[in-house]
Formats: sequence, C-alpha cells, structure tokens
Amino acid sequence: MQRGQITGRLVTSRADTPTARGRSNTSRAFMATTHLLTPTRLHHHHPSSSSSAPTARLRATTASPASPLLSSRLRLAPAPRPRRGAMSVRSSLIDPDGGALVDLVAPRDRVPALRAEAAALPRVRLAPVDLQWAHVLAEGWASPLRGFMREDEYLQSLHFNCIRVPGGGLVNMSLPIVLPIGDDDKERIGGAPHVALHGPDGGLVAILRRVEIYPHNKEERIARTWGTTAPGLPYVDEAIASAGNWLIGGDLEVLEPIKYNDGLDHYRLSPQQLRNEFDKRGADAVFAFQLRNPVHNGHALLMNDTRRRLLEMGYKNPILLLHPLGGYTKADDVPLPVRMEQHSKVLEDGVLDPETTIVSIFPSPMHYAGPTEVQWHAKARINAGANFYIVGRDPAGMGHPTEKRDLYNPDHGKKVLSMAPGLEKLNILPFKVAAYDTVAKKMAFFDPSRSQDFLFISGTKMRTFAKTGENPPDGFMCPGGWKVLVDYYNSLQAEEATPVPV
Amino acid sequence: MQRGQITGRLVTSRADTPTARGRSNTSRAFMATTHLLTPTRLHHHHPSSSSSAPTARLRATTASPASPLLSSRLRLAPAPRPRRGAMSVRSSLIDPDGGALVDLVAPRDRVPALRAEAAALPRVRLAPVDLQWAHVLAEGWASPLRGFMREDEYLQSLHFNCIRVPGGGLVNMSLPIVLPIGDDDKERIGGAPHVALHGPDGGLVAILRRVEIYPHNKEERIARTWGTTAPGLPYVDEAIASAGNWLIGGDLEVLEPIKYNDGLDHYRLSPQQLRNEFDKRGADAVFAFQLRNPVHNGHALLMNDTRRRLLEMGYKNPILLLHPLGGYTKADDVPLPVRMEQHSKVLEDGVLDPETTIVSIFPSPMHYAGPTEVQWHAKARINAGANFYIVGRDPAGMGHPTEKRDLYNPDHGKKVLSMAPGLEKLNILPFKVAAYDTVAKKMAFFDPSRSQDFLFISGTKMRTFAKTGENPPDGFMCPGGWKVLVDYYNSLQAEEATPVPV
Repeated sequence: MQRGQITGRLVTSRADTPTARGRSNTSRAFMATTHLLTPTRLHHHHPSSSSSAPTARLRATTASPASPLLSSRLRLAPAPRPRRGAMSVRSSLIDPDGGALVDLVAPRDRVPALRAEAAALPRVRLAPVDLQWAHVLAEGWASPLRGFMREDEYLQSLHFNCIRVPGGGLVNMSLPIVLPIGDDDKERIGGAPHVALHGPDGGLVAILRRVEIYPHNKEERIARTWGTTAPGLPYVDEAIASAGNWLIGGDLEVLEPIKYNDGLDHYRLSPQQLRNEFDKRGADAVFAFQLRNPVHNGHALLMNDTRRRLLEMGYKNPILLLHPLGGYTKADDVPLPVRMEQHSKVLEDGVLDPETTIVSIFPSPMHYAGPTEVQWHAKARINAGANFYIVGRDPAGMGHPTEKRDLYNPDHGKKVLSMAPGLEKLNILPFKVAAYDTVAKKMAFFDPSRSQDFLFISGTKMRTFAKTGENPPDGFMCPGGWKVLVDYYNSLQAEEATPVPV
Repeated sequence: MQRGQITGRLVTSRADTPTARGRSNTSRAFMATTHLLTPTRLHHHHPSSSSSAPTARLRATTASPASPLLSSRLRLAPAPRPRRGAMSVRSSLIDPDGGALVDLVAPRDRVPALRAEAAALPRVRLAPVDLQWAHVLAEGWASPLRGFMREDEYLQSLHFNCIRVPGGGLVNMSLPIVLPIGDDDKERIGGAPHVALHGPDGGLVAILRRVEIYPHNKEERIARTWGTTAPGLPYVDEAIASAGNWLIGGDLEVLEPIKYNDGLDHYRLSPQQLRNEFDKRGADAVFAFQLRNPVHNGHALLMNDTRRRLLEMGYKNPILLLHPLGGYTKADDVPLPVRMEQHSKVLEDGVLDPETTIVSIFPSPMHYAGPTEVQWHAKARINAGANFYIVGRDPAGMGHPTEKRDLYNPDHGKKVLSMAPGLEKLNILPFKVAAYDTVAKKMAFFDPSRSQDFLFISGTKMRTFAKTGENPPDGFMCPGGWKVLVDYYNSLQAEEATPVPV
C-alpha cells in the first residue's frame, strides 16, 4: 500500500468493473436513511484548549451528569485522564481498547522460521470468511484480542457482549470471533499445541498457538447473537450452518499482511495506518461513518452537518472516516467494488470534502445482527482512532428472514450502543431521518411541520429507478455516483438476459 | 411471620401434605449432583483478623493475581474497603447491589391513601408468575431495581446481563424482570402515568408509577435469554407464549408484604429478614445453596464440607443459607410443600446442623435458563447477605426440549458465573461430583482412582426406587427425608389409579 494513495480523493487503481454479484432482490441496498444529529445525545463536547500540539486533545471527555437510578439512558464516561505533559502527536488520538493496538503480523525476518515450523504442524483450512476474521484480528481491529477466541472469551462475548481485561476493566466484544473446525480436523490436531492455518487458496496464512478446542454450540450461538434462530440469516447460512462442530481458539501469528489482490487492497488501511493518517492530517476529532451502501446526498448532508457541529464545539480539524464494510455481505447488497467506485465519484463530485475525509475499507464480514453487531462496528473504530461514531436507524439490521417485519426494533441499535459496557469513551452520534425536500429540491433533514413537502425514497423505489434508467429527483445523489449504480444494475440485467448453457 | 420460627430446625406450621402437583415424568427431580469444593476456585480466603466485633468482617476480599490477558478464568474482585472503625453488627455483611437494599412495601399508614388512589387508576391483572416477580421486586431481591423493568433496563439485561447504576458501576441483572400486558390493557391505560396492579384473585397488590409501555419482542427475548427458541421451554409456555405483546415498566409500590397463605409463608424471609437473622447469629460468612430438589446426603456432604473449609480459612461462624426456590417450577419438579417437608426431615435427622443452617424460601419463579439464570440466583443471594455461593454442574439447566441432549453445556453455568460483570464481590464455590461409595456405604466425593467403587444414582433410578418402594442404598438419603418422597410418589400413583369422572 502506498501512503500517497490514501487521500480524501479516492482513486481506484484499476478499472473495478461492477461484478455480477448479488443479482437477487436488492430491496435494502439503499435503505440507510439519514438522520439529524441530535444535540442532546452529544456528550463530552469541549476539546481541551490546553494543548498546544498541532493535534489538539481528543480525550477531553467528561462524564455526563448522573442519570436517575436505572431509568433513562446512561452515558457515564470515565473522567478524562489529564495528560497535559504529553506532546507526542500520536498520543492525542483515543486509546485503543486494552491500551495498546494489537499487531499480530510477524516481523519479516521471522517468516522463514515460521514457514519451517508450520510445515510440521497440523493444518486447518480457512474458509473465506475465516480469512477475513484473521485479517481483522491481525491488524488489531479487535484489540485487545490476540487471536480466535478461546472458550472463556467466547462465553463472555455471547453472554455479556464484553470481555474483562487484566485490572478488572471491560472492553466491548459483542460478536464471537471464532474459528470453526470439523470432527476430522479435531482428530487430526489431537493434542498438538499449535496448528497452521492455510487460506482458501491453500497458502500458509498463520500459526495459531496454544490452541483450545471446544464445542461449537451453533443453536445457542445463533440465538444469543441474533436474537432469533429463524432460517435464512445470511451469515448463518454462509459461515455457521455448514461449519464444523468445534471451535478452535488460540494466539494468532500471521505471516504477512493479508491481501485480496482485487485492486482494492490499497484502501484497506489497518488501524495503525489510519491512526498515522489522522496524525499526519492533524486531526483533533475523528468521526466514523460505517456503511455498506452507496452514499446519497442525505448521508452526505449528515456527514457535513456532523463536521459543522464538531467545529462549533471547538474542534479545529475534525476528520471523517468514511468506512465501508469490505468483508462478507449478503447477495443483494451492492458489491464492494461498485460501492468503492460510487464512493470515489461522491468525492470527485465534491459532495464530501477530500481534504477532511478519509475513505478506507473496514475488512470485517457482516453479521446483520443489529444491536449486537453495531457494538462491534463502533468498537473496531475506536481501535482505528475514532472518538465519534455516527449511528442511524436500525444499524446492521435487515428484514426478519421469515416474517414480514424488521428483524430488530429500529431504535434498539442506538439505545444498546449508548449503554454498552466498554464503549463509554466513545461519543455516540445518533441521527434523525433525512428525505427529499421537494421544495428545496435537495435532500434535507425531515421537518415534521411541513411533512407534505418531503419525499421518502425507499430502497425499492431507488432500485426501480436504477433498473429502469429513470433518474431520481435532482439532488438525491451526485450524477457520477448515480451512473455507477445504473451501470451496475444494467450489467445485472444484461447477465440475466444472457442464456446460461445447461 | 414470627422471628421465633426462623431457626435452623425447620418446623412446618401445618401438615403440609404432598400434593398431586407434577404427576408427569420426574426424570430430573434428583439430578442435582454433588460436587467437591475445588480449592483453586476459592478466592479471598482470609477473613480479617483485625475485627473484634462479634461478627468478624466478611468483606476481607482481596483481588486475585492478574490473570493472563483474556485467557483463563477471571476473578478480579475490587480491593476491600477497610471499615475498621465501623462497629455496627449489620455492617459486617456483604453490601447489597446498589449499596442499599430496596424495600418497595409501603408504610402501613399510607395504605388507605394508596387504596383510594388505586381505585381511580387503570387496572392490570397479574398472572401468578407476575405476582411472584412483584414479590421478588418488593423485597429487594433484585436491588437496585425499583420495579418492573423499563426498556433501557430490559435491553441492558438482555444484551449485557448487567445494568449500569449511577456512578458508572455495573450490577448483575441477567433475567428480564418484566410485566407483559395485552393490546386491550395498553389501550385502556392510554397515557395514564400510573396503574393499579391486581393479583390473580382480584385483590389490589400495588401501584406501578411513571409507567413506560414498550413492545414485548417475545422471539428475541426468548432467544437471548435461553439461547434457543425451541418449543417446550417451561417458563416460556407458562409465562411468555400466551402473554401480551407489550411490556409495562415502572416504579413499584406494594401495599403490603405478599403472602400465599399456603402454610409456608413463615419460611419466606425477605433479604432484610435474612440479614437480621445472620446478624443475630453472629455470622462471619454466609454461604448460599440454591436448590429445587430434595436434599440427599451428597448435597449434605458438600454443604458440611464447605463449612469445614470456611472454618479452615479462619471464619469463626459460617452460616449456611439452604435456600429452596419457591416460585414457579415445571410440572415434573417435586412440589414446594413436599420439598419443604423433606428439608425439615434432613434437619431433624441431624444431616445438617440446625445451629448453623437457615432454611428459607427464595420466592423467585424458575426460568430453567442455565448460565443466564444462575447469575440471577447468585445475585439475589448477595442481596440477602450471602458472600459465598455454591454452584454445581449444569445449574438451572434441563434437557433440551426437542433434542436428546442437555440444553446447556453443563460446565458453562459455573464458567459464566465466575466471569459475570457485577458479581465480582461474590465468592463462587464450584463443586465436583459426589456418588455412592459402595465400600464406605455412604455418599462420598468421587475418587477417580477407584471409580469402580462408586455408584451414580441418576434421577431416573431414584424415581424408580421411590415409586417401587425399593430402598436406595443405605446412606444415600436420611430415612425421614426418603419417606417423604416415597409418600409423595405413592400419592401420585394412587391418584393416577383413581378413575376420573368424565
């Protein structure tokens, strides 16, 4: 990865043509509604004015007033640790969970010895999703986790959505990050202390050390993670249903940074690389926007408004981390290469400011586990240096797989996020809905006093527009970004029309 | 309730004849296996020797050495708060959750005003299980909870098994304590701030204040609480499946202590009454044993051995809280009156020492929710003054309702309990299996080096003995206690043999 490529202006290094992935229904592809930043939900507003370093302190968090006992929403952040003497540029970013960013990639000079060692170890083959999790772990997105979960970590994640660290504190850890293996794997491994992990292509990826093998209680894992066991959960179908009956945990040592060679690797910045970039730009606030959909002007409105609000609070240089999820997504989501091309157009067209925006890929797979998963999405961004996290309606949600309703209460995501143990130091920014203002002819925050002027453009409506070649109302999305989507859906239709040899 | 009745020697005030409740299969009725106290799991061993008060300090807990990062089991208790100056007898017991024991029973002189107020309020009728929960809440077993959960508390319970209190700390709260209402109730309540709660018999029980009504997402509640949505979970069938689609939370004000008039009310000591009793006896350690089964000599061995160990640690007067669960249980469990009679025989026969044992009824209903529920069982006993909690194999577990296996991994209960947020101050005492030693002709801790000498008497085997009138091996259970069970099963068979008029 070349540092020069990591700029606000996102430039794809190859012609990333839309793929044919995800030809089925795309009903939720554009459903990320945009919301207004709610002032009452902003906590810890005032950046310290005592710092003279180029990057002012982000850790100027103060506890909100004590809430009434057990009643209203709680946000009880620890008081800021004064570090007035610290002049290091790096020190101004929020601390990673556990205090130090985990990096599980072996030094280059150890690689020959690791290859030699691995040749003698029992082998486990990683599925594509497993490799994505190895990537997540290796770069420290899940800090302080140092490998696939052993049973104690798994149980804490499943029951408490958080894990205790030495000293007694809790870090958030809402998704089990586990590696399933089959009966045959377990038998082959026997009592061996370490195993070699090979990628889907057969190449050696990592060594997993001091392994612990324990039962993969799939029904319980699914029920506790998703709050349902209904058939048709995408991640379950992809990565659990046919996976092995055992989980193997241990300390991970990865041979080299994980790459996908899909022309997008240069967008895959590690948490450390992102922190370096924030420091280089002199960020004094970092606000993260997680997405897995194209960016429309309602999203842009929200992100620009958030920056304006942060400036009003006294921050001098808030930087936006526009952070599309890059791992496994369900078939009817817009594929990553199309989304990256669309995002690049949004920056080229000036809808977002390249100078104050970093676009990067978050390598995690998607669970579609709503309130449970949004915690993971937020937690991982702490490790990348973000101290503000924007959360919308129904984050990581989807339709119930077997009933005609949302799987989750759309408000639960932001409620659970705001109360989650281990996320106290993160500022949660919920937002209200935006819609198309037919008077102003642009996306605007919904004003209930003149609701008749607003047009809600659903995902289904949007897809119909893109498929039929009809344009959405002016100002819904920048023209360059819209064209990327039209081209993508045209390519799907062309493919559907092509007879398939039987 | 008369204080004089609360003695180790348990005396039933009426002839509590076995009832015909629970005539179906009783396969799990006796399956509470008995385990050996594991020394490595004992933490905070040394009672303070600096106290000269009659009740030596129980709070002499010290943090265990820091565990390796995220690996082995964690028990990181806060360091003891030295209170050397305090001479109050009461102060020696463990603090209740939230710092003060909740008591939601109105003062007597307020009752007429409350009755007058309630007459003008919308009414909600409590199901029998709801009344049991109102009882639990009223006496402070769920301290610091002050009523049925509002949504923020419910979501924290569901996702984190703990709730944040003012100041930022966490208290354990693993089961949702909620009150379901139907669409018609919700409509009738409308925007009223308070509602009157009436018992199953129609009598006024309480006022619920500043109510909040929110959706009862049954599927998600069941999945996250039980880790399965399989049909046939007893509590789900009893209290959720046919319950309303809304939950109503609020602050509870109960008119008078809740009684059942079943001849057992004098055993239902509140947490405050238990604390008073522990103080009266000069307890310097309280170890709680939760049970819903008859006590056999394996249990007794364990309890006596625990006391011996506590004395070895330096405690002068450890008191056992033998604490049978008295709320809803499934049909094939042994009914409460039979169990209470059996327990009284165990004390009469001298198997447990009446001087150092308090038998009392824990009024909570039973969820059979394994690792989730065992946290509740432990947490509630903190509020009653217990600082040691004995946990066995598969606590609060049962067979999977639709598959031929245990619903929970039998080891998960004690693991989850030992790691649960909010239970750091409780000492968890896991125990190993006991079995019938055919050489010594008594129940003994299982010795794997001579496993051929041990006989495991399963619940099925036990039931067969009791039903057929065959005696179990000498020393399995005291004769008086055994006779209670034989009489109970005989009464069931007699009833089954009686023709029922059609």
